[in-house]
Amino acid sequence: MSNDIYQQSLALHKEHHGKLETVSKIRLDSKAILSLAYSPGVAEVSREIARDPSLAREYTIKRNTVAIVSDGSAILGLGNLGALAAIPVMEGKAAILKEFAGVDAFPICLDTHDTEAIITAVKQIAPVFGAINLEDIAAPQCFEIEERLRKELTIPVMHDDQWGAATVILTGLITSLQLTGKQKETVRVVMSGIGAAGVATARLLMMYGIRNIIFCDSAGIIHDGRDTLTKEKKELLNGSTLKGMEGTLTDAIQGADIFIGLSKGGTLTQDMVRTMAPKPIIFALANPTPEIMPDDAKAAGAYIIATGRSDFPNQVNNSLVFPGAFKGMLDANIPQFTIEMFSSIAEALARHLKNPSPEKIIPSMFDEGVMEVVCETVKKWKN
Amino acid sequence: MSNDIYQQSLALHKEHHGKLETVSKIRLDSKAILSLAYSPGVAEVSREIARDPSLAREYTIKRNTVAIVSDGSAILGLGNLGALAAIPVMEGKAAILKEFAGVDAFPICLDTHDTEAIITAVKQIAPVFGAINLEDIAAPQCFEIEERLRKELTIPVMHDDQWGAATVILTGLITSLQLTGKQKETVRVVMSGIGAAGVATARLLMMYGIRNIIFCDSAGIIHDGRDTLTKEKKELLNGSTLKGMEGTLTDAIQGADIFIGLSKGGTLTQDMVRTMAPKPIIFALANPTPEIMPDDAKAAGAYIIATGRSDFPNQVNNSLVFPGAFKGMLDANIPQFTIEMFSSIAEALARHLKNPSPEKIIPSMFDEGVMEVVCETVKKWKN
Repeated sequence: MSNDIYQQSLALHKEHHGKLETVSKIRLDSKAILSLAYSPGVAEVSREIARDPSLAREYTIKRNTVAIVSDGSAILGLGNLGALAAIPVMEGKAAILKEFAGVDAFPICLDTHDTEAIITAVKQIAPVFGAINLEDIAAPQCFEIEERLRKELTIPVMHDDQWGAATVILTGLITSLQLTGKQKETVRVVMSGIGAAGVATARLLMMYGIRNIIFCDSAGIIHDGRDTLTKEKKELLNGSTLKGMEGTLTDAIQGADIFIGLSKGGTLTQDMVRTMAPKPIIFALANPTPEIMPDDAKAAGAYIIATGRSDFPNQVNNSLVFPGAFKGMLDANIPQFTIEMFSSIAEALARHLKNPSPEKIIPSMFDEGVMEVVCETVKKWKN
Repeated sequence: MSNDIYQQSLALHKEHHGKLETVSKIRLDSKAILSLAYSPGVAEVSREIARDPSLAREYTIKRNTVAIVSDGSAILGLGNLGALAAIPVMEGKAAILKEFAGVDAFPICLDTHDTEAIITAVKQIAPVFGAINLEDIAAPQCFEIEERLRKELTIPVMHDDQWGAATVILTGLITSLQLTGKQKETVRVVMSGIGAAGVATARLLMMYGIRNIIFCDSAGIIHDGRDTLTKEKKELLNGSTLKGMEGTLTDAIQGADIFIGLSKGGTLTQDMVRTMAPKPIIFALANPTPEIMPDDAKAAGAYIIATGRSDFPNQVNNSLVFPGAFKGMLDANIPQFTIEMFSSIAEALARHLKNPSPEKIIPSMFDEGVMEVVCETVKKWKN
């Protein structure tokens, strides 16, 4: 990424001292209005909510407000930079939620990396919020934190690094299958990098019906013989039809239709692309440097290449999904996210994309109507 | 309070679904601006803050953002209604901070009443905030929570039910002494109700030089012979020149110059007022029903009567102090509140009040320049 963008970003953040502000929806310009918005009138609002807690949705910001929660343990691709360094990213997500979906949001950056402490803190601050967006929390802790909070809270909880990424990837895959005439039941997939986004993507692909998946991490193909498999990796292996394989990424990639890279700095070479099945589909999503650069992939025969970068076609960008998804959950008062919702969002986004091509397999977050498509798809899951 | 105000307040809250919103300071209307406000540009901001944590003040909302923290255990005068019922009050404080002082604030309503859990939660959410406003937390837990957080955090912490109330009361007392020609060194004070506001008010009065104070609670005059004195009540007794007395509030009030009521529904009768020293000064601050109504107090000879109510003269209203106080602390980057600051604010507010009279002993929060007076007074405590 060019140094220029970094310098401009620093300047922008310094000029505004951050990106978010809190604003009163009511002008407090007289004693009369203060007596309604605050004491003594507000006492009755408190009494009513104490009498019937569901009224918090009517009388407070709860119904439209999301907590963006991070412990700063996995900030973008940068690793564990801590809670203070997480603030600008969480502010950015809050700003996107408001700008693209009209949802209020506030950054909660936690000064602890302990799984139980994070779960406890989120439960304790939950009353003000209508939903929780977990963000930039390292794997594998992120899996237990999301799972436990979904069980122990009565508001929706989503780890966006998992489900935002997975949903956009599935959107691009659905379009790619259409463009190449490949079938989800028979297509052969190699996934490299099984962190937060990798696990959720694999789960979502399997749910969608793609089950021929070979999983690779920095030690090569993941197989049952390894000593130290996390419970997530074991679960994924058990769901795959290709769990018997051993070897390297180079072994895995031979004859594969689809490569999905979510690694930390892994590499896919042109020689490896040349061993793939016809019309290779490549998602090289390592940040900031993809596993293979788009021009190199194309030169080696890739039919479709997607990355996480905004300066190439086919950017896989979580921001396509989370604003509309939270808006739909809040507006319809749906108690919890499910994996089926994310699959339905991906299918709806793929349908929404008019005239897909190898250079445009995913809608842009600026395309007309995409936020509404996500929001309306989620709302159909009410009841 | 009239039922009408309550119904209007419910309607206002329902119309807006709460009073606060979060707004992006930057319009996110192009890929170019997104790449600066969010990924990839924001990565550099995170890296810079990780390198030098003090830069969070330059690049994020931290420098101008206050957490309004409550566990809902002592909401207004209503008691323990819980975290959800606290939301409208905390939103109101956040709205006042922004409207009157330009300070951003967000409600943190905690689903726990445990002292250690509250301290832990506030420390964990502190990174995003430049200061902490504790609110509507019951005594005596509020004392330890404030004291511990002041020691264990590096940002200012103020329990507004204590110090906001105490500072406004001292402001009114300074003016009252001027109007009656009474002297702080010789004046005789009776305080009824020694909760959060009572303890802080007593501490502030003593610091200012008023030491002839008789403390009463629902069991009558507080004295050393009692078994169950909290450490705060013991401390106050030890600071008073009148700690030898025993008896009832009726006994205490005889010959007193000043009555300060911060009780939960206590009563000051007209007969009791008639036993006070000449030119009685009465602060009847029980909410919503004062210990004595202003007309009754006047009829019994009160020279000055202040209440917590907006429908009578001399309203003691915390909102006069906390917006400017937080603004000053944040702007000057002062690490912690001190009792001396609150005394200086009261003196400055008393000086700012032009033409004081028995009907106007305290500036209104709508008076020109009052927020600036508070803010500038605080900023003088830098270093």
